[in-house]
Amino acid sequence: MRVLSTDAVHLVGKKVELQGWIRLRRDHGKLIFLDLRDREGLIQLVVNPKTKETAYKAAQELRPEDVIEASGVVKKRPAGTINKELKTGEVEVEVVSIKLISKAETLPLDMGAEELNLELPTLLDHRSLTLRHPKIASIFKTQEAVVEAFRETLKNEGFTEIFVPTIIKSAPEGGSEVFSINYYENKAYLGQSPQLYKQIGVGAFERVFTIAHAYRAEPSVTTRHLSEYVSLDAEMGFIESFNDIMDVAEKVIKSMIDKASRIAKISVPQIKKPIPRIKMREAQEIVFKRTKVDHRKEPDLDPSDEREICKWAEEETGSPFVFITHYPTKKRPFYTMPDPKDPEYTLGFDLLGVSEEWVTGGQRINDYKMLVDHIKKWGNKPEDFELYLQAFRYGMPPEGGFAMGLERITKDLLGLENVREASLFPRDMERVDERFSKDR
Amino acid sequence: MRVLSTDAVHLVGKKVELQGWIRLRRDHGKLIFLDLRDREGLIQLVVNPKTKETAYKAAQELRPEDVIEASGVVKKRPAGTINKELKTGEVEVEVVSIKLISKAETLPLDMGAEELNLELPTLLDHRSLTLRHPKIASIFKTQEAVVEAFRETLKNEGFTEIFVPTIIKSAPEGGSEVFSINYYENKAYLGQSPQLYKQIGVGAFERVFTIAHAYRAEPSVTTRHLSEYVSLDAEMGFIESFNDIMDVAEKVIKSMIDKASRIAKISVPQIKKPIPRIKMREAQEIVFKRTKVDHRKEPDLDPSDEREICKWAEEETGSPFVFITHYPTKKRPFYTMPDPKDPEYTLGFDLLGVSEEWVTGGQRINDYKMLVDHIKKWGNKPEDFELYLQAFRYGMPPEGGFAMGLERITKDLLGLENVREASLFPRDMERVDERFSKDR
Repeated sequence: MRVLSTDAVHLVGKKVELQGWIRLRRDHGKLIFLDLRDREGLIQLVVNPKTKETAYKAAQELRPEDVIEASGVVKKRPAGTINKELKTGEVEVEVVSIKLISKAETLPLDMGAEELNLELPTLLDHRSLTLRHPKIASIFKTQEAVVEAFRETLKNEGFTEIFVPTIIKSAPEGGSEVFSINYYENKAYLGQSPQLYKQIGVGAFERVFTIAHAYRAEPSVTTRHLSEYVSLDAEMGFIESFNDIMDVAEKVIKSMIDKASRIAKISVPQIKKPIPRIKMREAQEIVFKRTKVDHRKEPDLDPSDEREICKWAEEETGSPFVFITHYPTKKRPFYTMPDPKDPEYTLGFDLLGVSEEWVTGGQRINDYKMLVDHIKKWGNKPEDFELYLQAFRYGMPPEGGFAMGLERITKDLLGLENVREASLFPRDMERVDERFSKDR
Repeated sequence: MRVLSTDAVHLVGKKVELQGWIRLRRDHGKLIFLDLRDREGLIQLVVNPKTKETAYKAAQELRPEDVIEASGVVKKRPAGTINKELKTGEVEVEVVSIKLISKAETLPLDMGAEELNLELPTLLDHRSLTLRHPKIASIFKTQEAVVEAFRETLKNEGFTEIFVPTIIKSAPEGGSEVFSINYYENKAYLGQSPQLYKQIGVGAFERVFTIAHAYRAEPSVTTRHLSEYVSLDAEMGFIESFNDIMDVAEKVIKSMIDKASRIAKISVPQIKKPIPRIKMREAQEIVFKRTKVDHRKEPDLDPSDEREICKWAEEETGSPFVFITHYPTKKRPFYTMPDPKDPEYTLGFDLLGVSEEWVTGGQRINDYKMLVDHIKKWGNKPEDFELYLQAFRYGMPPEGGFAMGLERITKDLLGLENVREASLFPRDMERVDERFSKDR
């Protein structure tokens, strides 16, 4: 009966069977130490020829990533050899037998170091192997926690999880950055976001969220963008003001940071004070006062403004998070609600954190006629939005929502350099699993 | 401050504010009854001109799907008028004011009936409206519960949730039923399943699950197939036999049935006895004995065999579920492990339930050389599987997993006729939101 590494800690003096991958073999003269990796963590095996000669011989043949079954007795480690970094660091297993389950070929890279420190292309070219490195695997454990926080927070707030399609009939928001599909006899596209479907969902469920794949045919390779990413989307009806949306987004983000910090060393401080909410024009004033660089007439914040305003927020609240509201109407999608008091600006917002956009959202236009009018003004055809418009033709309360990219949040939480590190199998212009050009 | 319908039940004698959609207006001479729908359910509003003339006048103008805010006093319903079908059936709200939030256009169909009873094309042509019908919306509440059961069961078993891409570089399993994408300067495809990625995931996490969109360019329109569906996929390493996989699949299915039955009237009996596990050849013998129709030399079960064997299972165990194992190796995908005792047959299985396949799964080939060999035998090129093969080159324990289609399970649990009813926005040859041919 197999025992997991972390359970062995509670079985000192007992004989156990462990299964896993060899992470490292260290030959110390007469003793061989093996770091065994299973789904719960690492555990140290000690192979002593005096205990069992056959096991020692088997251990001599072992190489990294070999899969083995080892049985032995759990012992407390001698004082001075306790490893506090490991959950199992107070014990080791004195091995009496080793069975090889699957032999690994010689590795093309050193998987044994504390950090992998590979160039990104190398990391990704060997993705099926490099994923097994504890530091790399832990990125995706954090990612899982981020998604859990998203779901749990929203379920507690009465949201229903829905599943919406990614194949769409026409390419609304622009069209240039959309992938087209050969769909039977027709042309179809991959959706850039689940936006329109989650809005439809409000009519049936009031509050919905969806974890959706979204596709952007980004014509360039940056550290921030993926051609396919996971979009965490929420939408809610019967809002009293667009502050209600930011309230929920703030809860979600706090919960993500909290949950991630419980399982990983994260590089983002906890949010302890309310996140400031300021208009874009106010943000520009603040940046101007602090830097004397005048961007007050610009229609948007540029990356340097975003960094500066995050710095300001950190000084004000201890966390580099700030909601920027009231971007110019022309800069936001057609469905964004203009501020009735000043229709040049919208009731839309971005949550900036760690110097980039973490969340984008806003109140939507829920009036049918106004929505048709906006679709036209934004250069689209209402007939391409038949199902979407239907939702607004038959009674829709004030509503809004938000979206965030899972990989980007994971990247920022862990302080990774490139969003590709936070995607198991990233897609971009140059790569779908393997690189398109193979001149390595 | 808004109160939800189901909370009003606990506020008898109190004044409350409700918000929602008018589901039905019934004019009873001097009284108007309104069924108000919000995210928690329905509640009856009573508008009496003697209570408030202005509210009564407002109520006279209301039509189905209008969005309103109503305030009034919660009262116990008079004896004899209690509605046991409703969570709020013991109360009603005596309205003192009504505010119109959003006016609905005249509905193109009657949304007020207990059952919608629409032809499928009509149901889908008006999807954004028909979704609001309580019976239709409840399908997707059940679907949500099915997914929750999947996740919770697997998390309890030590599985990690992962997110894998849908854009793939080459089309392995056949190619004819795959959608192609124009991917920058290259050709790419939409994955038919997350199979290969979840197997790679075993190397890093041992046990993984993923909730993924899968795409099948089915060249026909059936009641069972969608062009885009949600695939619930799990994969686990260090199995002792392929029975371990069926054990987990059985837990998942039981939990789904249990969870769904708590929120909906389902048409599938609870599983109270272990699900039988029989080889395909044994199943054919059983069918032959029961029907005298001889399919014992056929390479697969046909739909009539599947129905008969489910009937047999129901008589044996009380539930129409049965695992069929050991399908012919040639009929299963290249990665399926042949039975070492009889390599003509695999360690693969299908779970049949309600006369169709609910789950498909099996042990996989974890030996690198054997896998390369199978890829070639199945007519594929190993170089198209570089990243996948990498996972097996560097040590992989015996492993296997299973997959199921979310929409199909939802359909069968609720006894729906067509899988499209269990997809919010179904895609098929003829439809992406709207029908391609618009000759309605």
